[in-house]
Amino acid sequence: MTLNKNIVVLGGDGFCGWPTALRLSAEGHTVTILDNLSRRRIDAELGAGSLTPIADVTSRLAAWKRVTGKSIRFEAVDIAKDPVLLRDLLAEIRPDTVVHFAEQRAAPYSMRDAAHKRYTVDNNISGTHNLLAALVELGLDTHLVHLGTMGVYGYDGDGLELPEGYLDVAVSGPDGRTYPRSILYPTQPGSVYHLTKSMDQLLFQFYARNDGLRITDLHQGIVWGTQTEETRLDPELINRFDYDGDYGTVLNRFLMQAATGHPLTVHGTGGQTRAFINIQDTVRCVSLAVANPPKRGDRVKILNQVAETHRVRDLAHLVASITGASVAMVDNPRKEAPENTLKVSNRGFRALGLEPILLRDGLLAETLEIVEKYRHRANLDAVPARSLWTRDNRPGVVHLRADAA
Amino acid sequence: MTLNKNIVVLGGDGFCGWPTALRLSAEGHTVTILDNLSRRRIDAELGAGSLTPIADVTSRLAAWKRVTGKSIRFEAVDIAKDPVLLRDLLAEIRPDTVVHFAEQRAAPYSMRDAAHKRYTVDNNISGTHNLLAALVELGLDTHLVHLGTMGVYGYDGDGLELPEGYLDVAVSGPDGRTYPRSILYPTQPGSVYHLTKSMDQLLFQFYARNDGLRITDLHQGIVWGTQTEETRLDPELINRFDYDGDYGTVLNRFLMQAATGHPLTVHGTGGQTRAFINIQDTVRCVSLAVANPPKRGDRVKILNQVAETHRVRDLAHLVASITGASVAMVDNPRKEAPENTLKVSNRGFRALGLEPILLRDGLLAETLEIVEKYRHRANLDAVPARSLWTRDNRPGVVHLRADAA
Repeated sequence: MTLNKNIVVLGGDGFCGWPTALRLSAEGHTVTILDNLSRRRIDAELGAGSLTPIADVTSRLAAWKRVTGKSIRFEAVDIAKDPVLLRDLLAEIRPDTVVHFAEQRAAPYSMRDAAHKRYTVDNNISGTHNLLAALVELGLDTHLVHLGTMGVYGYDGDGLELPEGYLDVAVSGPDGRTYPRSILYPTQPGSVYHLTKSMDQLLFQFYARNDGLRITDLHQGIVWGTQTEETRLDPELINRFDYDGDYGTVLNRFLMQAATGHPLTVHGTGGQTRAFINIQDTVRCVSLAVANPPKRGDRVKILNQVAETHRVRDLAHLVASITGASVAMVDNPRKEAPENTLKVSNRGFRALGLEPILLRDGLLAETLEIVEKYRHRANLDAVPARSLWTRDNRPGVVHLRADAA
Repeated sequence: MTLNKNIVVLGGDGFCGWPTALRLSAEGHTVTILDNLSRRRIDAELGAGSLTPIADVTSRLAAWKRVTGKSIRFEAVDIAKDPVLLRDLLAEIRPDTVVHFAEQRAAPYSMRDAAHKRYTVDNNISGTHNLLAALVELGLDTHLVHLGTMGVYGYDGDGLELPEGYLDVAVSGPDGRTYPRSILYPTQPGSVYHLTKSMDQLLFQFYARNDGLRITDLHQGIVWGTQTEETRLDPELINRFDYDGDYGTVLNRFLMQAATGHPLTVHGTGGQTRAFINIQDTVRCVSLAVANPPKRGDRVKILNQVAETHRVRDLAHLVASITGASVAMVDNPRKEAPENTLKVSNRGFRALGLEPILLRDGLLAETLEIVEKYRHRANLDAVPARSLWTRDNRPGVVHLRADAA
């Protein structure tokens, strides 16, 4: 039996937010979406909209009502720029749970130039903090579920398994004894976007400790796939699919390149190991997190929202083997180790019953079908990543190299 | 021989910024002050201006020119709200060093209510990040010297000496071996103000690592005293003195209470141990930091800017013994341990030649003279701290208790 909760989904019009809002509504919760529709504005800025023809938010919600009989309320609000409206809406709704997707979430976009760095910091930090301050001001015992990222950990570790948020360490005292401490994992973010999620962790730690806010932070891997059980119910419910160099995550980008007859572009040696999760499991994990809040007074509950890890070049060769595409190695603009291993605990969600979808389960073919169906909508000029990342990179150094594999 | 540098002092009209700007000018550096004069605006908001009659910024700078023949340029700019003007000024000035005092720096002010929490986060984080993004955008090799705070460490430690920014720890691997790591000290900030300085550390770590910015972060103790060698040169150069419950630091507040015949109010048991530094050493330390920048590619250089540690109740009894004032214990609104020990390394500045002024050196009497001279200017209603700190505190619980000592 699922307890019916009153849930606000911040950023509920986006790639992860939309299918999550539908799932929570399908489960019987009362759902309100707050969104400033910034992701659609950025589509226009980048000249690369969703590959899939997403309906406007009003039509989406009308379709959901038509198909399921369930209503989802929508309010346009910029939580970073209008904290008073945010507070007033929370005061009216008094949510049991707030699921917070309302942050700028593309690392390359956050590294385009000074203006995009500033936008990412101002939007993500002010928005998240405005929410926390409002919950305290209103005296609500709302459970906050926030989408973090695996990227806060950084990838320069020494091969130890990444724990779920906290690291047990020993500190040597001058008396020769060692003192055990459990600390927030020391972050090494690799972009301004990842940096903001690291800073979020300090915001959450403070508000949980000072005000007893109940907070779950989900450190998510790279999401692939596009549709979920709910978004498949009607063409007007279709989820967005990003293929561009800023928002397109690596696996979706490979599928797009393959479908349009382009080589799969791998940065550096492709030896970067990353964690992945299918969009259907994103939705499932958030639902599990909503159903299992921490207790008041607990420290922030941090869960790794990941299914498996792979090297980027292995993914490229997997997609190449399915599609017949070629693989092209290009210079890597990011300041990171060329090769890394990555072991990640996901024991938290496994204990809650998650049996994640893996790449070998064959859903790659389903995503490929979507891409082939809509490839005529793509602006192929938007596929390469253009961010220079550090000031040591100069325009022109990002170029195709022969496949070293 | 001091090398003449081109130095921008952000927040150079404030309590620490003003005497620092004068010292750097006196040393022969070319100094430009950028300040939005927000601290004077907050004086008006709180109804409690500086106890000392500070001149307006134009008169101050004219007095400095008259007395020393040296010019300091002033530009009014809000670095949090006008990043483009900040960037343009930095592009014109091309400073060797930026000394950054331009953050809201009172913990009680940051905890007044949601609006003040938001102001502190938005002002401090956006301002600091705008500066970092501008330095990268302009390709400058400027050395950034930032005023942090001892409060980022938190005070709930287990009695180990606080290191200078980094902690050496051992992590146990599944192979039974231990892996050493040097990490940013895990922060436990006790207010939104201290939280922003913790978040600043992550900003600095990222920009030093990704872009090679040269950054020194000074974790300063609680400042006491008011005048320096330079501010004493002319009445119009006098430094500000805060005595109110928001901005008045504990020792200065005790001196003010004594001078006006009030009991010295100690929060909780007064068992909180804190680190202290005289304003003259603040100025000396910043000068030493400016002269000793890290190398490009170094990690952030973190120094503890402190002279000594004392328990708050011991300070109260010291001031009481000099002045004949009584001591009153009041409830402590802050969520912190009632008693803590505090050992702090200041080896970095000691190695650079600092021999700090200590309380026992008798300068308390000098500060007391200033307070007695200007006590007629005080608004005594502003002396008690009014911030409730956590939502568990309710209006009315902050009241005088009988002195338990």
